[in-house]
Amino acid sequence: MSFILDPTLERDSQHILKMSLCDVRLIQDARYVWLILVPERAGLMDWHDLSDQDAQQAAQEMQTASRVLSTLYNPEKTNVATLGNMVKQLHIHVIARFKDDPAWPAPIWGIGEAIPYKPEPLNQRVTELTTGFSKDLGLRT
Amino acid sequence: MSFILDPTLERDSQHILKMSLCDVRLIQDARYVWLILVPERAGLMDWHDLSDQDAQQAAQEMQTASRVLSTLYNPEKTNVATLGNMVKQLHIHVIARFKDDPAWPAPIWGIGEAIPYKPEPLNQRVTELTTGFSKDLGLRT
Repeated sequence: MSFILDPTLERDSQHILKMSLCDVRLIQDARYVWLILVPERAGLMDWHDLSDQDAQQAAQEMQTASRVLSTLYNPEKTNVATLGNMVKQLHIHVIARFKDDPAWPAPIWGIGEAIPYKPEPLNQRVTELTTGFSKDLGLRT
Repeated sequence: MSFILDPTLERDSQHILKMSLCDVRLIQDARYVWLILVPERAGLMDWHDLSDQDAQQAAQEMQTASRVLSTLYNPEKTNVATLGNMVKQLHIHVIARFKDDPAWPAPIWGIGEAIPYKPEPLNQRVTELTTGFSKDLGLRT
């Protein structure tokens, strides 16, 4: 069974870059800087479905994503979560949170409606993130 | 600086057992089987504040907790998350989710009021969990 990205995740997010294990994607909601990391392994749902080795890799990639958001945007907190109650395919949210964001201090899920990025801010965000990840990964290899 | 458990986490949860890195605690809310894993390291807030080695250990302990809940309670999903918008000390939620729980399919945070365990069900839950973790950890050593 080969990995195929869930169609809802594909529709709601945009590819940023591929790490060793995870596809890093930006959720199409301009209210937040909201990434998902999708381990490219078929048939995963819960965190414990990852092999030990993949869980360690995922943990490292979650650190990279959380650190990149902190370095780029200086948020109050990062939130890191795998929920999957709606979309079962294992995916890990990594979100930069600010005291003036629309959900603070609550979690962001289910608060209001997503606001799609306009083309220019989307391009800028994708460029920032691609550069941020490349720098972080480069520094660590 | 030595580790001291945050007083809010201490008040809202009960110690179950200590793993290598994390204190495993049960949140005092009988509506869910809701654990928190607290890495016993001082001064941590975000996921990327963990050292690489501690992140790998935390990832493994998150797998243990998620697997133990799945084995004991056969939930629809486990949710694994570190948010920390309210209580800054790094703690990782691991929750068994069911289609008939009060928040499904939303995340559980901020939905209604906690219902404290009565003494007998609390004792039973603590015993189940202690046994479940011991079995899982025993099998893996």
